[in-house]
Amino acid sequence: MKDKGFREFELSRAFQLLEPGPVVLVTTADASGKNNMMTLTWHTVMEFTPRIGCIIGPWDHTCEALTKTKECVLAIPTVELIDKTVEIGNCSGRDTDKFETFHLTPLKAKKVHAPLIAECLANIECKVVDRIKKYDLFILEGVKAWINDKKKEKRTFHANGDGTFVVDGKTMNLKDKMTKWTEYI
Amino acid sequence: MKDKGFREFELSRAFQLLEPGPVVLVTTADASGKNNMMTLTWHTVMEFTPRIGCIIGPWDHTCEALTKTKECVLAIPTVELIDKTVEIGNCSGRDTDKFETFHLTPLKAKKVHAPLIAECLANIECKVVDRIKKYDLFILEGVKAWINDKKKEKRTFHANGDGTFVVDGKTMNLKDKMTKWTEYI
Repeated sequence: MKDKGFREFELSRAFQLLEPGPVVLVTTADASGKNNMMTLTWHTVMEFTPRIGCIIGPWDHTCEALTKTKECVLAIPTVELIDKTVEIGNCSGRDTDKFETFHLTPLKAKKVHAPLIAECLANIECKVVDRIKKYDLFILEGVKAWINDKKKEKRTFHANGDGTFVVDGKTMNLKDKMTKWTEYI
Repeated sequence: MKDKGFREFELSRAFQLLEPGPVVLVTTADASGKNNMMTLTWHTVMEFTPRIGCIIGPWDHTCEALTKTKECVLAIPTVELIDKTVEIGNCSGRDTDKFETFHLTPLKAKKVHAPLIAECLANIECKVVDRIKKYDLFILEGVKAWINDKKKEKRTFHANGDGTFVVDGKTMNLKDKMTKWTEYI
């Protein structure tokens, strides 16, 4: 991993990568080991551990691999990957090898068989711990997290749900007002 | 509502207000009619209707009103409200009248008893349709949505979970790449 610029990121802080609500890529390796990925915008942190809720339904090809292998990686793309990320969300692993088509590089993860994505800013290896079928809700537990500190572009992007996306702007520091949740500052 | 600049926003598109993952304010009116609000960053769209999942636990004073009244409003603040929003998240309705303390204006909603917030960009009136206690997950269904088109500041902000916040930057239009989900473009 090191040659790709990744270092391990504290698991107890990995929720901070997802809390801002960026568009993410979910990678899976199916039972035969074939890699796939999908674009996901409907997700939320549920607990600091981190526990993450993701809406993924049977209409997503990823659903099958996720159900069978109970593993995935949440990869966080930055803005130079926005075109690919949108296109990845508009085709299916049923008939497309997305890593090949979009020239993205799978890296071996440590605790799951699903691959990290070398071009992303961060990757969180996750296990499926529950599924609430009624709501197409997969509940994931992050088991290992990676960040690429050497990546210059750090701006993630957020789906507006209408084909437009908002890119991260300036960061504002309000740590002095966070009197209640001081352990994560 | 009109004198405050709000117009009704299509309910079928209200998910687009929340999908980018902004920090939101959740208002409630308890059984005695007393208004309160909390700051929420852990939420996700779950369905276009819109169905919204929110992590709100017994440690939040809002949890009680939400459980008893099964109603709330999700209000979306913009960046000029960032200080207030953080401070609202660092005190409790148990001992603070937040509307009064933070000089925010409650407006009467149409379908719920919880108030809209006049100073926010948008407000979504919601009913609690389910609660998955194991995960402190409230499942809401939006029943009415409002937007203030006259508000000049439209930039929302996103929690990084460490006391810093990222403000909306530029918007990128990738509608021509959205070949799969064309009904919302």
